[in-house]
Amino acid sequence: MVATGSALPERNWKEGDSFIVDFGEHLAGYLSFRVAPTGSVADSPIRLRLTLGEVPTDVAEPLYPYRAWISAAWLPEEIITIDDLPTEFRLQRRHAFRYVKVEILAASRRFGVRFDEMRAHAVSSAATDPAPLPGSYPEWIRRVDLVSQYTLRDCLQTCFEDGPRRDRRLWVGDLRMQALVNYVTFGANDVVKRCLYLFAGLPRSDGLVNGCVYERPVPTYADTTTLDYAALYCVTLQEYVEATGDTACGHDLWPVACRQIDCLLERLDASHLFHDTGATWCFIDWAFGLEKSAATHAVIVFALRRMLKLAETLGRGGEVAHYATAIEQMTEAARAQLFDRERGVYTSGPQRQVSCATQAWMVLAGIPESREQARTALRNVMADADAVRPITPYLYHYIVEAMLACGMRDEALELVRSYWGGMLDAGADTFWEAYDPQEPLTSPYGDIHANSYCHAWSCSPAWLSRALGLGAPNLETQ
Amino acid sequence: MVATGSALPERNWKEGDSFIVDFGEHLAGYLSFRVAPTGSVADSPIRLRLTLGEVPTDVAEPLYPYRAWISAAWLPEEIITIDDLPTEFRLQRRHAFRYVKVEILAASRRFGVRFDEMRAHAVSSAATDPAPLPGSYPEWIRRVDLVSQYTLRDCLQTCFEDGPRRDRRLWVGDLRMQALVNYVTFGANDVVKRCLYLFAGLPRSDGLVNGCVYERPVPTYADTTTLDYAALYCVTLQEYVEATGDTACGHDLWPVACRQIDCLLERLDASHLFHDTGATWCFIDWAFGLEKSAATHAVIVFALRRMLKLAETLGRGGEVAHYATAIEQMTEAARAQLFDRERGVYTSGPQRQVSCATQAWMVLAGIPESREQARTALRNVMADADAVRPITPYLYHYIVEAMLACGMRDEALELVRSYWGGMLDAGADTFWEAYDPQEPLTSPYGDIHANSYCHAWSCSPAWLSRALGLGAPNLETQ
Repeated sequence: MVATGSALPERNWKEGDSFIVDFGEHLAGYLSFRVAPTGSVADSPIRLRLTLGEVPTDVAEPLYPYRAWISAAWLPEEIITIDDLPTEFRLQRRHAFRYVKVEILAASRRFGVRFDEMRAHAVSSAATDPAPLPGSYPEWIRRVDLVSQYTLRDCLQTCFEDGPRRDRRLWVGDLRMQALVNYVTFGANDVVKRCLYLFAGLPRSDGLVNGCVYERPVPTYADTTTLDYAALYCVTLQEYVEATGDTACGHDLWPVACRQIDCLLERLDASHLFHDTGATWCFIDWAFGLEKSAATHAVIVFALRRMLKLAETLGRGGEVAHYATAIEQMTEAARAQLFDRERGVYTSGPQRQVSCATQAWMVLAGIPESREQARTALRNVMADADAVRPITPYLYHYIVEAMLACGMRDEALELVRSYWGGMLDAGADTFWEAYDPQEPLTSPYGDIHANSYCHAWSCSPAWLSRALGLGAPNLETQ
Repeated sequence: MVATGSALPERNWKEGDSFIVDFGEHLAGYLSFRVAPTGSVADSPIRLRLTLGEVPTDVAEPLYPYRAWISAAWLPEEIITIDDLPTEFRLQRRHAFRYVKVEILAASRRFGVRFDEMRAHAVSSAATDPAPLPGSYPEWIRRVDLVSQYTLRDCLQTCFEDGPRRDRRLWVGDLRMQALVNYVTFGANDVVKRCLYLFAGLPRSDGLVNGCVYERPVPTYADTTTLDYAALYCVTLQEYVEATGDTACGHDLWPVACRQIDCLLERLDASHLFHDTGATWCFIDWAFGLEKSAATHAVIVFALRRMLKLAETLGRGGEVAHYATAIEQMTEAARAQLFDRERGVYTSGPQRQVSCATQAWMVLAGIPESREQARTALRNVMADADAVRPITPYLYHYIVEAMLACGMRDEALELVRSYWGGMLDAGADTFWEAYDPQEPLTSPYGDIHANSYCHAWSCSPAWLSRALGLGAPNLETQ
């Protein structure tokens, strides 16, 4: 039976009964409800299982047996016992949800229960309501823009969380995209600043910023670094100063950014090439078997260029003249050692692996000898069935960003349409942590109930449209 | 492995592990602990199952599959998920427990957890520490006295609860015994008064006080009356006024008590005999098949006598001259119609059922023609293998009280020794709701995990010793 929410108080539930409430949109926040006995005074406590679903599969399928390799403690369920009825109940834990499944696990047979005032109390640091994309944009891209905003809104808490369900943590890689979308939507710039300082304020002895940090119960870091994220910290700082004009923060964090570059340049070989030895994690993407040396090399160059830009803004160009030299050397090394002229693609590692990741980052780093070479590399890899393909929205973003950087506007739009539009077609209210168009019901964790369905690193299309003009009608008709 | 509590913080637990903490004594209250990650920062929430046991079987056996016919919502377990570690955690619900089983249901494999500062915060309205029985009393009766006090202490909250685990409710039948023990131990007389007013303040249209009332979330009553409890309300009021001298309360509640008597006398037949028609519940005991007409008849006479006493204290004798008449008529009716001279016992109902309940209440009501007849009736029924025997400590109490009322001190002591002493031998920290010496591991509910192991109606031995001299050395050696 399906009914409107206003009919809920008319229903009477007994032990063994269950129902699903649909709040109509995804949110991060708190659930509350009133529950009262019917028929008789409550002569026992009641025990409920609440399952808080981001997507229908969360509540329409049993969560157990659970098969993922990450902890079942992430499963979004609560078992609660209420002693005294009627009462107002509010879940203490914050959840990310649109759907709530309520199961009456146990209650005396002498009374029924009625649920009333079932409410979701959304929380976010997104305080403004951005103007929608103009009606002249295609309907689907306006919807992608809106869902990107919802994704960011629900991740935008006291810091930029990667996902409000999991792992509710601040990662550098997610932060860059969130900050970019934020500048063109909610403008919660103080939160970006706070995040930059959270990384800076939790220093490691090796000089690298942490890959991720925890805010609660007190700010602390996971013992995780990723070299590409260390480079992206510099990029995020530069973009923050550019977006806000907050040069004081730029100066304050300048030494932290320079230290990242120093640490990264130290890791180059004599020929100025970076090799992923596995000693320190390079993230790039979750794609199985991905060789990450070339992509990480390119991320470092990308960061070096942004550091020159930041130095110029801050009037500290004199301090980083050697960065320009490093860019030249690293560009030269990549062109000489990594470019496969025959196949028209950049390769990575001793096996000369061809991947989308490598092409995207090479293009963003400005390493190809020409825009034409850049476009060709991207087109070749997308057409190559043997190339290692992306599996996260995070890397899909960098492919789109690279395409836009070298003038492949139609292909970029088509990729957003097929990938993010594919999630919309599958019913997404917010964009997901993982989406494989070939197998939308699979999970990188081995169980879709472990997936996060509102994940920061998939929120970038709003920036792609609003800052880079993706899908803008005047450009589409050029 | 068994270790002292101080060693707990040295242990490191992983998903799938479990341990049991023994707090050394039964209490009603709140559990708190500190839980911290070990080995690494906590990269997932943890989910725990806590089982709060009053007795070892609660935590040493699985609670499921649950077989009782009362709701599984009573099972003393909590499933909790903690997002941010380290943290101080405090269970919101009050529990009755000595043992706590902690199971780590789920946690990331990247860290372990350490438990620390595991504490039980006991709550009670028992503010004083009664002097122990003198050392001249037998050791076992001093222990019975102490465990009776612990039982009352844990039931003595904002009202006198029947049991702090279940159903945490105020029942007239339990209240009388609790009040009596209270007068000779904790002296929380204001709580007795509060309870008397809770019943008086929740009137029913039929004039009877409720059998039980709920305090939370707001005072309300279960739609349950028992005729013997209505009579005992009058007894409890008389004993309260006698114990405290609070005649103002006596006058205030006098009309409520008189109304009980009026309601009860209305139910007699033309020959002044009470018949249990089943229209209104008579409790007396849970014994299966017990015929309750005669015992209830006697409870009414018992209450009438106390009402005369209360009237005298309050100077209202003139209002209740007809109560004396009723006592005479009811005594006469019982002697004439219920006494089986051949067998030397009082019978109940058309089948002339012989039960311990009937003899006990007849004796307490002063119905037997002589003390000798009273003693004989009690001795006969205790020796009669076919007589209906008690199954609750509640009725065991009234047998002992009756024995003491007619001078059977040795038998009374022996019954307390075998019954309450039997619970001690079985390891009781507090006295139980149900105890069958023949089958100590059975339950009236069909599953021992449904039993309450700290139950008010078994706390009376402290009163029997302290007020009636049970087990007093000078009497034992008489």
